[in-house]
Amino acid sequence: WDFVRGIHDAWSGWLCVLLVGVAAGAVAGVIDIGTQWMKDLKEGVCPQAFWLNQEQCCWSSNDTFNEGDHCAQWYTWAELFGHFRDDAWAFIISYILYVMWSLVFAGLAVLLVRTFAPYACGSGIPEIKTILSGFIIRGYLGKWTLVIKSIGMILAVSSGLSLGKEGPLVHVSCCIGNIFSYLFPKYGKNEAKKREILSAASAAGVSVAFGAPIGGVLFSLEEVSYYFPLKTLWRSFFCALVAAFILRSINPFGNDHLVMFYMEYSRNWIFVELIPFIILGILGGLIGTIFIKGNIMWCNYRKQSLLGKYPITEVLVISLITAIISFPNIYTRMNSSDLIKLLFSQCGVADISPLCDYNRNFTNVNSRIEIAEAGAGVHRSLGLLTLALIFKLCITIFTFGIKVPTGLFIPSLVMGAIMGRMIGIGMEQLAYHYPYLWVFQGACSTGENCLSPGLYAMVGAAACLGGVTRMTVSLVVIMFELTGSVKYIVPLMAAVMASKWVGDAFGRRGIYDAHINLNGYPYMDSKEEYIYTALAADIMTPRRNESPLCVITQETMTVDDIENILKSTDHNGFPVIVSQESQYLVGFVLRKDLTLALANAKKTQEGVVGESHILFTAHSSQSSLGPPAVKLRKILDMAPITITDQTPVETVIDMFCKLGLRQVLVIHNGRLLGIITKKDVLRHIKQLGNEDPESVLFN
Amino acid sequence: WDFVRGIHDAWSGWLCVLLVGVAAGAVAGVIDIGTQWMKDLKEGVCPQAFWLNQEQCCWSSNDTFNEGDHCAQWYTWAELFGHFRDDAWAFIISYILYVMWSLVFAGLAVLLVRTFAPYACGSGIPEIKTILSGFIIRGYLGKWTLVIKSIGMILAVSSGLSLGKEGPLVHVSCCIGNIFSYLFPKYGKNEAKKREILSAASAAGVSVAFGAPIGGVLFSLEEVSYYFPLKTLWRSFFCALVAAFILRSINPFGNDHLVMFYMEYSRNWIFVELIPFIILGILGGLIGTIFIKGNIMWCNYRKQSLLGKYPITEVLVISLITAIISFPNIYTRMNSSDLIKLLFSQCGVADISPLCDYNRNFTNVNSRIEIAEAGAGVHRSLGLLTLALIFKLCITIFTFGIKVPTGLFIPSLVMGAIMGRMIGIGMEQLAYHYPYLWVFQGACSTGENCLSPGLYAMVGAAACLGGVTRMTVSLVVIMFELTGSVKYIVPLMAAVMASKWVGDAFGRRGIYDAHINLNGYPYMDSKEEYIYTALAADIMTPRRNESPLCVITQETMTVDDIENILKSTDHNGFPVIVSQESQYLVGFVLRKDLTLALANAKKTQEGVVGESHILFTAHSSQSSLGPPAVKLRKILDMAPITITDQTPVETVIDMFCKLGLRQVLVIHNGRLLGIITKKDVLRHIKQLGNEDPESVLFN
Repeated sequence: WDFVRGIHDAWSGWLCVLLVGVAAGAVAGVIDIGTQWMKDLKEGVCPQAFWLNQEQCCWSSNDTFNEGDHCAQWYTWAELFGHFRDDAWAFIISYILYVMWSLVFAGLAVLLVRTFAPYACGSGIPEIKTILSGFIIRGYLGKWTLVIKSIGMILAVSSGLSLGKEGPLVHVSCCIGNIFSYLFPKYGKNEAKKREILSAASAAGVSVAFGAPIGGVLFSLEEVSYYFPLKTLWRSFFCALVAAFILRSINPFGNDHLVMFYMEYSRNWIFVELIPFIILGILGGLIGTIFIKGNIMWCNYRKQSLLGKYPITEVLVISLITAIISFPNIYTRMNSSDLIKLLFSQCGVADISPLCDYNRNFTNVNSRIEIAEAGAGVHRSLGLLTLALIFKLCITIFTFGIKVPTGLFIPSLVMGAIMGRMIGIGMEQLAYHYPYLWVFQGACSTGENCLSPGLYAMVGAAACLGGVTRMTVSLVVIMFELTGSVKYIVPLMAAVMASKWVGDAFGRRGIYDAHINLNGYPYMDSKEEYIYTALAADIMTPRRNESPLCVITQETMTVDDIENILKSTDHNGFPVIVSQESQYLVGFVLRKDLTLALANAKKTQEGVVGESHILFTAHSSQSSLGPPAVKLRKILDMAPITITDQTPVETVIDMFCKLGLRQVLVIHNGRLLGIITKKDVLRHIKQLGNEDPESVLFN
Repeated sequence: WDFVRGIHDAWSGWLCVLLVGVAAGAVAGVIDIGTQWMKDLKEGVCPQAFWLNQEQCCWSSNDTFNEGDHCAQWYTWAELFGHFRDDAWAFIISYILYVMWSLVFAGLAVLLVRTFAPYACGSGIPEIKTILSGFIIRGYLGKWTLVIKSIGMILAVSSGLSLGKEGPLVHVSCCIGNIFSYLFPKYGKNEAKKREILSAASAAGVSVAFGAPIGGVLFSLEEVSYYFPLKTLWRSFFCALVAAFILRSINPFGNDHLVMFYMEYSRNWIFVELIPFIILGILGGLIGTIFIKGNIMWCNYRKQSLLGKYPITEVLVISLITAIISFPNIYTRMNSSDLIKLLFSQCGVADISPLCDYNRNFTNVNSRIEIAEAGAGVHRSLGLLTLALIFKLCITIFTFGIKVPTGLFIPSLVMGAIMGRMIGIGMEQLAYHYPYLWVFQGACSTGENCLSPGLYAMVGAAACLGGVTRMTVSLVVIMFELTGSVKYIVPLMAAVMASKWVGDAFGRRGIYDAHINLNGYPYMDSKEEYIYTALAADIMTPRRNESPLCVITQETMTVDDIENILKSTDHNGFPVIVSQESQYLVGFVLRKDLTLALANAKKTQEGVVGESHILFTAHSSQSSLGPPAVKLRKILDMAPITITDQTPVETVIDMFCKLGLRQVLVIHNGRLLGIITKKDVLRHIKQLGNEDPESVLFN
């Protein structure tokens, strides 16, 4: 039995991430299926079996039909109301029902969130970053958040709001991680150990969101996690693998590929294309900057104005505006994922969509695709895409931060893909009209189709997401897991790097860090670089000229003294020193341990009165007169981390970051001088950044 | 000008990694081209222009020829000697020349290494890991090592020894990083900063070795680097990108793909195949364990026996044995990379190689490839492959560690690929003979070719490399960058994970850690988990009952006292305390600073004699009688890291690892008790692992 227990203990980490992976995969599968059904509901219904979505509804049909076409079993709302022809009435009915369903879905989502789980709103990634850095937000990863966020996510995505389900999936997955960790005492009872499980869970979240297990691990490493040792890397890897595998088995996309946007471009990229790719990177960085600045300004306004008091109204208004503007434009009406797929794809020979309306004259279907002049359909599409880009950018600024689950991976990808596709078409036409320009020599002069606008869309999408989130390696890996192609690694890397540099030039914070800062979470960023000139003595409490530090002596204080200290202060812990005269440090005692131990002593130990001495020493040096002493040596932390007063602040921050400390004690020649808490450090950093040091929250 | 300097300072990190990337890419290109030429030289020559390799030689020919065929311009050695027919004489001539060239190349390589740069032998990765953990090996990353290792690598690979050039390329790339870092004072003069450049350089090394930039970054993160902040991640990413890009521009493989073994399998994998994939993982773990144990035993034997005295003879003997045994077997005769390519590939319709000799009857070339019975060629190949696997495993155990540049990525991949291909063919035949077995239902019962033995080879290769090196995430990424396919991520991950678990069950150390341990480098492994029960007081110097610690007082010691201490001890530094009676810690002073300052004071300050007091205080509390005092406060480190004697060893190790310390001071109630150096910690860890604590080297 001991053997089994030993095995269980050694393997509980792996077992826990296995369970987390399985659950995350299953939940993601359910969410995918639910979203699929609901978003089809906006356009029509399967009257025979309303619980089927369009694709499933058509499976039961015996007709051969092409994807995107209607089958006889599926009725659009207009058809259900008897308008089988594409006339104005049909359009109006569809329009009204589209807007109505949007409002219903969005309204339901916000009501659920407001009523049951207020933490289920937003993307969740800023908060998870903060939690992984050591801050505790009670209830943020609870079961109610899990349930409501999953349902709210389905509703919000289906409502057609400009948001994605990728960020919230990371949050959902972390909730699962948190819940399962309570099954294993080793993890449930130790916050530091639990964070290892959460790191793995966030990897699983991205893994199921994009079908990108490796990208998930890297996302957890680069963006989310604070402390990421190798053991966590392996567990995250395993967790992400299991989650991806389960999702693949559920197969919500109904295809064999694990990848969401499977792409194959017929041509390799040519050298000169690096220039437009880098330009895409720069534009992506700019869009990212505009988005971050705009969104933060709006969120600040929401916080300070009356708007923050009416979250439900806000959601309804935004979803009304979104639905009304979206419907007329085919590219905004369609689902964001479908739009990305369309923009990424290459024009085939028999493609009849307006985006592929080139002036081609084919002799037969097997002839190679030649580069061709854009037709009217392409020009019209370009106009619509421009409108869609502007609309998406504006509406996403207002959407990210409303009280429903909102992710911004998909909106960012959409913006980038539109931008990329437009530049791609531009390059293509340039190459068509000037095939003998030296830059196109060799590749394009043969008349073959040498540029894929779809590839530009992919690169643009990566650049834009990079500009918003400032990810690099993980983003590139996610992109090629998304598209299933490793060939375009150099273009992707170049664009993402350019985007990051441009973005960083305008403001070092990505959207998640900006939101952490906005909400005042105590997150210590190891990325920020200031020139620190101060010493530990300058930032410690007490400052010069302040009243001395509140300390406990190791054997001269009585129960009453301690209780007075506990009452008059609200510190989380107190340093214990040899005596008030010598001030030599003995250890550190936590407030909660002290309160508990005192209450306990009064209950169980006889004769403890207010005058009883409290002893932190092993042997009492006092005479045995008077009431019996209370011995509290066992609650004393004899190994507090100490630094000298001459330590540079840079080193102090380094120690806080790497060792995950909450406070250090400052000593000089063995004497206790003061204490530096995490809050002191964060305030100092804020001051250096010319920001309000009081904006830091702390529990 | 100040502005320019500011920019330069801010960007010098990026500029440095840019240069490193360019240089690494260029060097790798030269090495690839050199290797290509030399390995062809073993089989024949281009009489018109001996500096061309076989492929280039045939370019000038106007004949259309298939790859692998001979063209008229290229003469094999037998042909050059007039034997144009494939008779026994031709075979013997080829054999003799093959062996001869092997001996010449290997001999040259070992002579160069012995004469010019003894550090250029081996793979270099264990040493780079150690260097990145903070140990300094002078000259290990110098320019001579760079030059000799590059040339030696070409020679060693061409000689046909069972070794690869991937590990050494990481070493070469780190040499480049080290050399370029001296151009930037910010990096050249600061060992900690220089390590950031080296981390990036090692990423570039793997990036050019496999054409895998992302894999390179992850390799640097998972396997090589000790401390890997986000900033280093981005720089490594950039460095790897640049290196891959330059290599692609040089285009040594002569194809458009960046990837080495570009693969496309027509079928997706089916569910039940996970079982053989996991079996491959287990076998890979076993092979890895056998290899590590065998190699370490042999290296230990070499160290202790006379064999270590005759490195040149050893290399010649091994290369003679390798050449003699390799030549008769077609699969060992061919270049390792070519063999991997062959094993990974899928059998085409018109494939005539023995490995693809299936009993198929085609009606026309366009018919789909059906699953078929293996022919005689396949059976013979299986025999030869078994021999090749056994031979490779044995010879690589003896080869890794000889005094030429040796990498073991390629040999491991070869072993795994052979194993995988054999199991793949087995599975394929199983599916052919029992197509109606329930596990194959649906996928194989249609008679189509449902299993690709090539995919098994790929998975096997990954498993075997995983067993040897214990990499996980980086290995999977390298594999799919190598083969250009993301579809097989789940099989790869499953096999690699299984391989790691099996390997770890038999011994926690991968080959690099095993070699670090063998050589006694002071590497503190954050992966190893022991149950530490000791406290800081138990492992500090002085132990109980030992003579007290050698300390300096802040104002009572004279120049003579200090010089005596310097003479009688060999510590690297000394704690400074208030006085011998109180023992309160003031700071820490380094031996080299102290020596320098004393010498300096004697030279420049008048009246300094042996009786002069040394003052570490700001103000002298002594009377101004006697000779003038030497003030050394400026060389005193006022912020040494301290811990209390009650600190658990686990925390101490954590602090050493994360803060990169060399020593901590142990205090109790403000009084100095002792000191713990890195060496003390390493010894304690060795003791816990039941190993000889004195085997740790230290500079």
